[in-house]
Amino acid sequence: MLKNDQLAEWDRDNFFHPSTALGAFARGELDNRVVKTASGVFIEDREGNKLLDAFAGLYCVNVGYGRQDIAEAIADQARELAYYHSYVGHGTEASITLSKMILDRAPDNMSKVYFGLGGSDANETNVKLIWYYNNILDRPEKKKIISRWRGYHGSGLVTGSLTGLELFHKKFDLPVEQVIHTEAPYYFRRDDLDMSEEQFVAHCASELEAVIEREGADTIAAFIGEPVLGTGGIVPPPAGYWPAIQAVLKKHDILLIADEVVTGFGRLGSMFGSEHYGIEPDIITIAKGLTSAYAPLSGSIVSDKVWAVLEKGTDENGPIGHGWTYSAHPIGAAAGVANLKLLDELNLVSNAGEVGAYLNKSMAEALGEHANVGDIRGEGMLCAVEFVKDRDSRSFFDAADKIGPQIAAKLLEQDKVIARAMPQGDILGFAPPFCLTKEEADTVVAATARAVKAVLG
Amino acid sequence: MLKNDQLAEWDRDNFFHPSTALGAFARGELDNRVVKTASGVFIEDREGNKLLDAFAGLYCVNVGYGRQDIAEAIADQARELAYYHSYVGHGTEASITLSKMILDRAPDNMSKVYFGLGGSDANETNVKLIWYYNNILDRPEKKKIISRWRGYHGSGLVTGSLTGLELFHKKFDLPVEQVIHTEAPYYFRRDDLDMSEEQFVAHCASELEAVIEREGADTIAAFIGEPVLGTGGIVPPPAGYWPAIQAVLKKHDILLIADEVVTGFGRLGSMFGSEHYGIEPDIITIAKGLTSAYAPLSGSIVSDKVWAVLEKGTDENGPIGHGWTYSAHPIGAAAGVANLKLLDELNLVSNAGEVGAYLNKSMAEALGEHANVGDIRGEGMLCAVEFVKDRDSRSFFDAADKIGPQIAAKLLEQDKVIARAMPQGDILGFAPPFCLTKEEADTVVAATARAVKAVLG
Repeated sequence: MLKNDQLAEWDRDNFFHPSTALGAFARGELDNRVVKTASGVFIEDREGNKLLDAFAGLYCVNVGYGRQDIAEAIADQARELAYYHSYVGHGTEASITLSKMILDRAPDNMSKVYFGLGGSDANETNVKLIWYYNNILDRPEKKKIISRWRGYHGSGLVTGSLTGLELFHKKFDLPVEQVIHTEAPYYFRRDDLDMSEEQFVAHCASELEAVIEREGADTIAAFIGEPVLGTGGIVPPPAGYWPAIQAVLKKHDILLIADEVVTGFGRLGSMFGSEHYGIEPDIITIAKGLTSAYAPLSGSIVSDKVWAVLEKGTDENGPIGHGWTYSAHPIGAAAGVANLKLLDELNLVSNAGEVGAYLNKSMAEALGEHANVGDIRGEGMLCAVEFVKDRDSRSFFDAADKIGPQIAAKLLEQDKVIARAMPQGDILGFAPPFCLTKEEADTVVAATARAVKAVLG
Repeated sequence: MLKNDQLAEWDRDNFFHPSTALGAFARGELDNRVVKTASGVFIEDREGNKLLDAFAGLYCVNVGYGRQDIAEAIADQARELAYYHSYVGHGTEASITLSKMILDRAPDNMSKVYFGLGGSDANETNVKLIWYYNNILDRPEKKKIISRWRGYHGSGLVTGSLTGLELFHKKFDLPVEQVIHTEAPYYFRRDDLDMSEEQFVAHCASELEAVIEREGADTIAAFIGEPVLGTGGIVPPPAGYWPAIQAVLKKHDILLIADEVVTGFGRLGSMFGSEHYGIEPDIITIAKGLTSAYAPLSGSIVSDKVWAVLEKGTDENGPIGHGWTYSAHPIGAAAGVANLKLLDELNLVSNAGEVGAYLNKSMAEALGEHANVGDIRGEGMLCAVEFVKDRDSRSFFDAADKIGPQIAAKLLEQDKVIARAMPQGDILGFAPPFCLTKEEADTVVAATARAVKAVLG
């Protein structure tokens, strides 16, 4: 690679970064950071700064950085066959082997996996398949998708509509009309503070039922949800939430899409979030953890029930009119095979559960009594600290005060630890690689306490 | 990789292939092919069959297979840093360098590149950006996109709507209402056989003008087109088409998206199709040729005019609410840098022009007089042969006769040459790697003549 001093200038002149204040960046008012190398839970930039990445990239580098087994699998595949397409029954040893490995790990009623590149396009595929499914079943009106406020399901036009966060809708004319949102299973942010968790679950289910009755069950194709809300705030569901939701969906013959982009392949300490919470999905979305981000790859795992209708559809109508050039890309498939092997060999799913629980417990011990900490929550290797202006009244800070972003910035500045200020609310999120040690968890917790103290006292 | 005899079974049991008759494949009624390795213009499957790939995968392996320079760039990047995200001003040497290399090659009025994974998601980004653009300019009604029948712009919900081919709409409820189609610049398939090429161009422009007047120019945001129609039939535009279209668009303040997924980085013998035809786009879509498919990577190159409005938008509204986890993925970026270097070093763009012209000329000499060949056309390293039932009346075969697919199958069976039966019409398409030699072009032409003879006499 070219080593030169013009990189910063090239960056500002040519590179359109995602989720960035474009003008500020181009004018040089925002820092850029050129990441050079990484190992374990640490990344290192071109200036020699070594940072503890307690968010695993964008909660995706699950096995940790610098895994040479995966790098070598990618290298071998690149030398032997970097690309061939997977249309019309073509495949490679890697892609076929990976499809088998995925189905071996998925719930029993799952049938086949369609490969994409990222979580957004996988959910795009899911919506297409569900519309096709109901057309084949001769229910052309049954097409709307119910999602939850604060759900995150992608950043495209339809997938960004499924996402229930203002940042992804504003100025983009989203959500599109086929997407309807319902209550987020976010107990801490319930309207009525007197509600018990059990009452709140019943409320979520009855809200869902009300939406279905308002729209008509014969217009609603599917419900999509993350087992644990991710970008919306890292929020595990209240006890009993998923059984209550599923009962409503079954009653109205509405398909369930479990978006396991964040939870799939071990983040909760179980292979899938569906297994963790007893969810019985008709389609599962997978991405990040499938390759630990070593190469782009996603998937839509469809159940026997859905697959049977897809077969009928192509028997009647010819080949399915859906395909990405890079579906099942050999490099991604090779990375996926090596990644899933490593997860098993190093027992990383179990470590995610064990060290994740330790991280959550330590965070609660360190910050649970702080006057501005309203909630500390998590599951497996996911943890969030939510800040409030006042604990007793559960009142929130003004968004303009940017308390969450300030604490994340202080954490980075003081102790070189990366956490993420979640986009809606003052919520500091943690989603470290599964290989995090208890000592590293201690470092993260101590640094977080220092950052909170520096900003809030 | 695992060497075993169960691959075929695993494949049918677990793998949901794109563009496939799903039931037939799962039941074993369709062949599968496990591709093992590849070099130059040849791929080799697990059974030892060596096939001349005259379609470069899905017109994407532009530099040819087995390029160890690109494989080593991928390997080095995988070892050093397989992943970090590019949100909020983060980058890598590879992604920044590639952004600079792309802008150095793009038309002068281009400003920045947003990186995606494949052509579909790049066009999804384009639609999002255009909607945002018109919201920032306070023209909230100016949102519809005009595309052409037979255009190919992706396979998602909105991008599949931009695509103007029945296969991608049927049973998926597409196109969505924001997309409107106009006449394809397909002179051979003009309705009125007495029309001259010049008259046909005037007709296309006036059809476009009529659509704009019908809908109202203040409701139309953009026009999208491939410089040469690709999947719709490999159809170069008639002379004067692009200037005529651009005049209409400028008059009505409608943005132009040049979808250069197929033509970008040299397929026409010029770096971009825009340069080749004097198109002045506001946004350029790139994908396949950017990495020659060695790793998934796409891009949306936005012009100074569009960028200025995006800056205004984020100055007023905060960070742009758009991002893919794998935007500017380091592996894709490293592949892109190595690929563009190789294009230059081996003079492959010029070879695409020269050998492409030879391929087209040879094909015309071999098949131009055949009673069932209605048209032979191409540009650079693109060539198509279109079959007709009768030349004089330009009458077509029934689609049910599958003449195109039969000829493609015979070509593969007799001479182990891969061409593509394009999905709408009896059209045999060729899009070889740019490193094709004249001798290999002779092989392709001779084999095609034999296949045509075997099927049509």
